Amino acid sequence: MPDTPYSIGVDLGGTNLRAAAISRDGRMLDKISGSTDFHLGRDEVIGDMVRSVGRLRAIHGHKNLAGIGIGVPGFIDLDRGVIVGTHNLLGFDQYPIRDELSQRLETPVILENDANAAAQGEKWMGAGRDVEDLVLLTLGTGIGGGIISRGRILHGFVGMAGELGHMTVLPGGNICGCGNYGCLEKHASATAIEAMAKLVALGDNLTAKEVFDLAEQGNHNTRRVFEHMGRALGIALATLINIFNFPLYLLSGGVLPAWKYFAPPMRAEIEARSFTFRNTKTRVEPATLGNEAGLYGAAFLPFLLQQVSRS
Amino acid sequence: MPDTPYSIGVDLGGTNLRAAAISRDGRMLDKISGSTDFHLGRDEVIGDMVRSVGRLRAIHGHKNLAGIGIGVPGFIDLDRGVIVGTHNLLGFDQYPIRDELSQRLETPVILENDANAAAQGEKWMGAGRDVEDLVLLTLGTGIGGGIISRGRILHGFVGMAGELGHMTVLPGGNICGCGNYGCLEKHASATAIEAMAKLVALGDNLTAKEVFDLAEQGNHNTRRVFEHMGRALGIALATLINIFNFPLYLLSGGVLPAWKYFAPPMRAEIEARSFTFRNTKTRVEPATLGNEAGLYGAAFLPFLLQQVSRS
Repeated sequence: MPDTPYSIGVDLGGTNLRAAAISRDGRMLDKISGSTDFHLGRDEVIGDMVRSVGRLRAIHGHKNLAGIGIGVPGFIDLDRGVIVGTHNLLGFDQYPIRDELSQRLETPVILENDANAAAQGEKWMGAGRDVEDLVLLTLGTGIGGGIISRGRILHGFVGMAGELGHMTVLPGGNICGCGNYGCLEKHASATAIEAMAKLVALGDNLTAKEVFDLAEQGNHNTRRVFEHMGRALGIALATLINIFNFPLYLLSGGVLPAWKYFAPPMRAEIEARSFTFRNTKTRVEPATLGNEAGLYGAAFLPFLLQQVSRS
Repeated sequence: MPDTPYSIGVDLGGTNLRAAAISRDGRMLDKISGSTDFHLGRDEVIGDMVRSVGRLRAIHGHKNLAGIGIGVPGFIDLDRGVIVGTHNLLGFDQYPIRDELSQRLETPVILENDANAAAQGEKWMGAGRDVEDLVLLTLGTGIGGGIISRGRILHGFVGMAGELGHMTVLPGGNICGCGNYGCLEKHASATAIEAMAKLVALGDNLTAKEVFDLAEQGNHNTRRVFEHMGRALGIALATLINIFNFPLYLLSGGVLPAWKYFAPPMRAEIEARSFTFRNTKTRVEPATLGNEAGLYGAAFLPFLLQQVSRS
C-alpha cells in the first residue's frame, strides 16, 4: 500500500480524537481512535494529534500523503486557522491550531468545522454521493450544520457558514449560550432531549439514549419529547428547504436511532411549512457514514485543494 | 450605438411591465415602462412583452443582442421554464412562458425569479459590486429573496431557492397562502404593515406609504408596526447570517424609506440572535438600484450564459 495516494483526516471532538488514512478513491486504509483528555492541557491534546498522524504516516509513507484535514467543533476563522468562541475545547479558543500543527508535522494542514467536514464526507462517500448540493444537520450535544453547494463546502466570508444549530426556530424559546433564544439546538439536540425528559418527569438525569430506550419500552411520555424535537427540526428544515431548494437534507448523530419517533412530526411540519417541499422531490434522510463522515470529509479536503490548484 | 453589445432585461410585475436595453458594461441604453393589464388576458400581456422587446431591438440592432432575460414573480421551474403556483400573474401558472416568448422573439429567453434577478443586478451594478456573496430581501406586497453565491444566483435543483419570504419567523404567526404560519412576508412586507396598521387602529385602509407618512408626522402608534416588522426581519436576517456567513445582506423595495423606523429593532434582533454577526464585519444595508435592480439582473443573465458557454 505505500504507493497509494492518500490523505489523513482527523476528527477532534470534545471526548474523542480520531484519525484515519483514506485513499484518493475513498478507501479507509487505517483508523486510530483515542480519547481526548482536555484536562491534561492543550499541549497534550496537540501532542496526541501529532503522534496519531505520525503513526499513520509511518505506515503509509510520507511521499504519497496529499495532506492533513482536521475537523473541529465550533466557529472557525478560516483565514487565521483558529477556533473562535469554543466552549468545549478548553484552551483552543483563538489558539493558532492550524499553523502549530502544520509546523510540527511539516505538512500543510487544513482546518475545518466538524459538521462541514461531515457534510463533505457524506457528499464524497456517503448518502450524498449522487448530488452536488446538500445540507447536513448533526444532532449531538449541540447541533452542527454543513452546507455543500456545487460540490463544495459553503464557507461564508470568514468560514462560519452552516451554523444551523443557531437558526431561530422559536423566537421566545430556550436560552442559548450563543446569546439567542429558541436556537434549533436548544430544542432538538441530545441535550435538549435530556432537558425535556426532566421537564416531563421521565427522570432527572436521563441521557438521550435512555429516553430512547424508554420509548422502545412503550413509555408514552417520551412521545412528547420526540414530538417537540421533531417539530423544531421540521421548522428549521422547512426554512432550509425554502432557502436552498437543494435535493437532499441529511440528519446524523447519536439521536438517529430515534428517527421513527421524531421523523413523523418533523415531516408533518415540513409538509405544512414548505411549498417547495410539497412541490418537488426533496429528500430528508438519515446520513449513512455515521461518525466516520467527519473523517472522510476531513481527509477529502487535501485532495480537493490539489484539484483546485491544478485547475 | 448599434455596435454596442447589449442585452434586454424585462421585469414582469403584478402591475408593471418594464424592459431595458443594457450594454455589456452595465450602461442602461434605453428603458420602457408600461402597465401590465392582466385583466386583458395572458395573450395581451405576452403581446406587450413581445412588442416592448421588439421596440428596443429595433433601436439597438439584432446583431449585438446577447439575449433576453425576464424576471417574474413567483416560484420558477427552471428546467421547464414555467411559473409555478403564482397568485398574482393571472393565467401564467404552469404556462410555458419561456418557450412561448423565445419562439415569438426568435431569440433565446432566460426566465428568472424577479428577486433573484434583482439580487444579480445589485451584484453586477449595485450595492453588491464589491462582494461575491450576498442575500437580497425585496420588501413589497410580498417578500422575495435572492441569494448570490460565488457571484451567481443560487437556484437549487428546480430553481426555487431563495424563497426567503417564506422563512418561518414566528411558528404560530400569521397564516400564509403558501400553507405555513408565521412566514416572514406575513410580518414584514408592505401588506403586513397595512394589516398591522388596521390592528393598532391607525386606520382601516391605509397603504404602507400612508403608515410611513403618519410616522413622519410623529404618530407614535406607527412605532409598534415598524417595531414588529423590524423584529421579524431581524429574526430572519439573524438566521440567514448564521446559515450563510455572507458579507452583505441587502434590503430593497417600496418600504425602504421607513428604514430609520424599522432598522433599529431589526438590528437589535440580529445582534441578539447572531453570534456570527457580532463577531464579523457583516453588513446589512439598503440596496441601491431601486426598482431597476431587476432590469439589470435580468439583462445580465444572457451575458453570464455567454461567459459560461465560452469557458
